[in-house]
Amino acid sequence: MSGVLTPARIRCEVRTVLENFFADRIRSAASQHLADLVAVLRGLVLAGGKLIRPTMCICGWQAARGKGDLGPLLRVAASLELFHAFALIHDDVMDESETRRGRLSAHRALTTMHRRRGLPGDSSKFGRNTGILLGDLALSWSDEILQTAGLTATQLRAALPVLHAMRTEVVLGQYLDLLNTGGLDGDVQQALTTIRFKTAKYTFERPLHLGAVLAGADRSVTEACSAFALPIGEAFQLRDDLLGVFGDSAETGKPTLDDLREGKQTALMAFAAMRATPAQLGILQASVGNPALDAAQACAVRTVLEETLARQEVERLIAGRRREALHALDRAPFPQAVVAMLRRVADSATERTS
Amino acid sequence: MSGVLTPARIRCEVRTVLENFFADRIRSAASQHLADLVAVLRGLVLAGGKLIRPTMCICGWQAARGKGDLGPLLRVAASLELFHAFALIHDDVMDESETRRGRLSAHRALTTMHRRRGLPGDSSKFGRNTGILLGDLALSWSDEILQTAGLTATQLRAALPVLHAMRTEVVLGQYLDLLNTGGLDGDVQQALTTIRFKTAKYTFERPLHLGAVLAGADRSVTEACSAFALPIGEAFQLRDDLLGVFGDSAETGKPTLDDLREGKQTALMAFAAMRATPAQLGILQASVGNPALDAAQACAVRTVLEETLARQEVERLIAGRRREALHALDRAPFPQAVVAMLRRVADSATERTS
Repeated sequence: MSGVLTPARIRCEVRTVLENFFADRIRSAASQHLADLVAVLRGLVLAGGKLIRPTMCICGWQAARGKGDLGPLLRVAASLELFHAFALIHDDVMDESETRRGRLSAHRALTTMHRRRGLPGDSSKFGRNTGILLGDLALSWSDEILQTAGLTATQLRAALPVLHAMRTEVVLGQYLDLLNTGGLDGDVQQALTTIRFKTAKYTFERPLHLGAVLAGADRSVTEACSAFALPIGEAFQLRDDLLGVFGDSAETGKPTLDDLREGKQTALMAFAAMRATPAQLGILQASVGNPALDAAQACAVRTVLEETLARQEVERLIAGRRREALHALDRAPFPQAVVAMLRRVADSATERTS
Repeated sequence: MSGVLTPARIRCEVRTVLENFFADRIRSAASQHLADLVAVLRGLVLAGGKLIRPTMCICGWQAARGKGDLGPLLRVAASLELFHAFALIHDDVMDESETRRGRLSAHRALTTMHRRRGLPGDSSKFGRNTGILLGDLALSWSDEILQTAGLTATQLRAALPVLHAMRTEVVLGQYLDLLNTGGLDGDVQQALTTIRFKTAKYTFERPLHLGAVLAGADRSVTEACSAFALPIGEAFQLRDDLLGVFGDSAETGKPTLDDLREGKQTALMAFAAMRATPAQLGILQASVGNPALDAAQACAVRTVLEETLARQEVERLIAGRRREALHALDRAPFPQAVVAMLRRVADSATERTS
């Protein structure tokens, strides 16, 4: 390997692995029915996600000065994207989200397929249920890509504890998210714990660890990965929460009212609830988690989020975590080119508009 | 090992592995919330299932004259039971089943927990969504038990293709099941294909293969496993379909109206639809898949199933497949004690009342 792989190059390589994987699965599907399911999964996976987790995985490898054949590493990175597809598909079923990455969510695509073919039974229920199955398939297949990636026994032994931790943490994070849905109790700490599991560990820390241990990283490297990943991951999710309420749906690819209608107890909402006057709290309670929320109500909520300075608080948290992450990079035992790459990751994670 | 492990001994050993696994997970849970989830999973897994898949796995090992430490094998067998918990939990969410193994289904137990603690939000939705997550956790943990079972590299290399096939097949089987739900088109062949994937391969063939390849089985052994497993697995599911309509809910542990309300296109229903008079077809169409079906309507459906001789046809299929399976055992290169065990499995799979 000459120099480091840039994020653009990583995305391109990982997409190729995924393209080949799906082509093979569609070719060898035991029935047309399975091929239909695979096509929906392929559509989601290749619909232009940011491929953050594969990118982090390869950054972790590079941070630990990995050497040798990149083939197995790229397949492991691709397996993380398939794992992410699993998480997204089940998340969209749980949240009843209509869209994802600017197109129909997987379960809605399956609903549409059912209706279009005039199959018997309730199309929505079919979509929801086959969405659960499709997520299961994505989870199984992510494991299959990894197990057949061509890792050495030593690499596999190092990788498995990281993967196992990641899988449990993402479920715990989602579970905490559901526990926090529907109430407005002003518990900022609880909201931050949730995003640590749901996003910081799953999207940044574990993928970095995975790549690092595949390169034989010692503890100083994995700890430096955590010191960067946890604050930047939290900042990433806090930005996501802001975009979910204040973002431009043309850029984020999902309707701006969805997050409010769901009523997730984000740090943003927790700050607002903590500081709201009774009148402001009334607005939040009538709107957040209300599935019939309209644009005017959303506007009123946004005003409360501004007036209580909740938005400003969250921006402050993002800036603080970004500084912390950059500071960690200054001390990290990574090659300079990787540090530079991770700086850019920190920028795009915190300044992004989609 | 002196002699073969009997099914009773297998169940006892596998339960011990599972007990220890859950005790460890509850002790080391990252939070009380995760411990709550684990407790629900533990309740389902140890609620007295038949442990057919672990039993088949160990039969496969014994059929292939496996030798040596049983510890890793028992952990692999236990991983199949956790995999099965995943399949059951998601199945119950999809079917909106209230009960499983004579107790609340996992998602309903989570609904009840939510309501009892007075947590904010819709308890049913919480139960359904956390049920999806709990199934995901069971799937991830089944893989974790397997990967940490202590298999040799050779064993793991032999086991993985079997497991990967099984995971894809079970999703395909469930998908075919959903495709067939809600219509009554008299397509017996389609119903039989579904149960081949959903049950015969998943419950009998692949667990037998798994144990066999762990013992280093050659092709003659795995083919003999298939020759027994596929017919007996189909017979098992056909019996299940009959029990779902004609069984005693006190014995089966699930309400007798559930299967009819769901409207699955079983071979039983397909036979009936194929042979029904217009009046009989009217009864089936008004009742099968009707979520409000009552006991009187169920009675009318049962009468149609008798009058069209659909019940008798299914009994005939069961008997034929049982003969085929027993015939395969006569020619199988298995130790005599294992043949005797599998004969008893064939009996209980086809004659059972629960």
